[in-house]
Amino acid sequence: MKTIEITEIGNPADVLTLKETPTPTVKPGEVRVEVLATPIHPSNLLSIAGQYGEKPELHSVPGVEGVGRVVELGEGVTHLEPGQNVLLAGGMGTWRDEMVGPADGFIPLPPGDVEQLSMVALNPVTAHLLLTKFRTLKPGDWIIQSAANSAVGELIIQLAAQRGIKTVNIVRRESLVPALKALGADIVLVDQDDLAERVKEATGGAPIVYGIDCVGDETFVRILDVLAFGGTLTTYGALSMRSPALNLGAAIFKEISIHGFWSAKWFETASPAERQDVFGTLIPMVANGKLKTKIDSRFPLEEIDQAVARAAEAGRDGKVLLVPN
Amino acid sequence: MKTIEITEIGNPADVLTLKETPTPTVKPGEVRVEVLATPIHPSNLLSIAGQYGEKPELHSVPGVEGVGRVVELGEGVTHLEPGQNVLLAGGMGTWRDEMVGPADGFIPLPPGDVEQLSMVALNPVTAHLLLTKFRTLKPGDWIIQSAANSAVGELIIQLAAQRGIKTVNIVRRESLVPALKALGADIVLVDQDDLAERVKEATGGAPIVYGIDCVGDETFVRILDVLAFGGTLTTYGALSMRSPALNLGAAIFKEISIHGFWSAKWFETASPAERQDVFGTLIPMVANGKLKTKIDSRFPLEEIDQAVARAAEAGRDGKVLLVPN
Repeated sequence: MKTIEITEIGNPADVLTLKETPTPTVKPGEVRVEVLATPIHPSNLLSIAGQYGEKPELHSVPGVEGVGRVVELGEGVTHLEPGQNVLLAGGMGTWRDEMVGPADGFIPLPPGDVEQLSMVALNPVTAHLLLTKFRTLKPGDWIIQSAANSAVGELIIQLAAQRGIKTVNIVRRESLVPALKALGADIVLVDQDDLAERVKEATGGAPIVYGIDCVGDETFVRILDVLAFGGTLTTYGALSMRSPALNLGAAIFKEISIHGFWSAKWFETASPAERQDVFGTLIPMVANGKLKTKIDSRFPLEEIDQAVARAAEAGRDGKVLLVPN
Repeated sequence: MKTIEITEIGNPADVLTLKETPTPTVKPGEVRVEVLATPIHPSNLLSIAGQYGEKPELHSVPGVEGVGRVVELGEGVTHLEPGQNVLLAGGMGTWRDEMVGPADGFIPLPPGDVEQLSMVALNPVTAHLLLTKFRTLKPGDWIIQSAANSAVGELIIQLAAQRGIKTVNIVRRESLVPALKALGADIVLVDQDDLAERVKEATGGAPIVYGIDCVGDETFVRILDVLAFGGTLTTYGALSMRSPALNLGAAIFKEISIHGFWSAKWFETASPAERQDVFGTLIPMVANGKLKTKIDSRFPLEEIDQAVARAAEAGRDGKVLLVPN
């Protein structure tokens, strides 16, 4: 069995190693699964570098989601069968070629695009929760988001468009506009000082009730500035690595609510009913192509250093996947 | 009839003038009320200076609350009688010696301290809403607040103590500690860099679930730093006049919610049932001395310039009241 292991906290391209160990035997109630696809997320890289919430344990296996195929059943397992595709639980790390674990930990998947389904558990869940957990939105409501061309940003565009929610999307380059419009974005604007005026012009002065930011710094400040009285702003990242200067006058006189959201925590704390509800909504959408994430490139486990280096490059266009089998 | 009038937007000591006009006759359904006491709040001064939410109209009368005594009834008024003390509605400005208006606009008051009751509608309501609207608190919960020796801060200490809620109170000078302890403060600490450590030590590491800030700047940052996972922070002022650098890492990884609260807006938007509920709770507490606000000094309308100058002084110790009659 091949696994990727964290040898120390640091730059991912330097501290990951490929390890070979004997595949554990399959005990009663367990299954053996071969890993078909598992993504490299920016949050994985930050975690390995010790910059994301709690630090990972040394010698642990990174990776929080993926799709596998059942290849061996332990005694007494009846709800799965060999050849069945399953969603991989993140608990034991997914950057590996095989997993052996309790059959209950693997959610059976419907037929559909394996690579897309390997990315369903993190970004689509984050996008879905960002659009449901902090503000009740109805068709015709206007929202604004930054980093609209990120994986989560593009999923928000697709989910919002399907619900009739209007989106103002902030990007850093004009060249990104056509692709986001094609996904269903109503308005796409390049981030600049005069953002508030341009939003007003583009929306005809419609109240923007909800903002979603993962950039921080001036971008966060501008989104707060754009929000209507009683608006809500959720922050789920700080790509700029810079703290915004919180305009208390705007926050108070517009009675803004700001929510910090750590999506990884949801997976720890959500009830089984909540998970069922969220995955029951998202898995069919991803399986049938109604919700898509761009893929930049694919690497075998043996090329983990190149894979994480590519995942960290500014120029990549979509997710980097590990395809171990 | 004497009124204080705003002649232009600017420094309150320069732009207010005392005006004498004939007292309007009392029409059917109206009453005439003589004003007994009406406070000068910092928000009144900021408003006159054009620095608080919407700018006031020129020639309008400042003042948003007070206590008056009914002196004349118009035809058909049955629920009030001469000599009855009433709460003054802010709509027409309370910095005056007489008011004539619809009888419905005046809430009858129980017997009690007139000066204390003249301050019930703003600060006690703000303190009460800060302790009820944004976070459900139960006995034994720990909260933290800045500017604990402000009028609202002292009311929060009293209200929290009566509900068994534990308070960490931040002040700027050691000399303020004994008075706040006497009011019921559990812990009083001077604002400094190492606040988080000293809070931890003083509370035995108890989770601080709720923070209330009206200072901004470093104080806001330190309160955010002190809050437990899932904590809530309400900001209702920016005495420092400086924006805090919002630590997005803390906000996200602790899933903090931050709410901007403009208490003046509550008076515009609260339903009659909400008002009844809030005033029904607070008026008896103020009338019977269970909730007190410190008074610094009293001025007649003729000394309005000295009164607002005193209200703006750093060294004052309590509210400045206008006592027109």
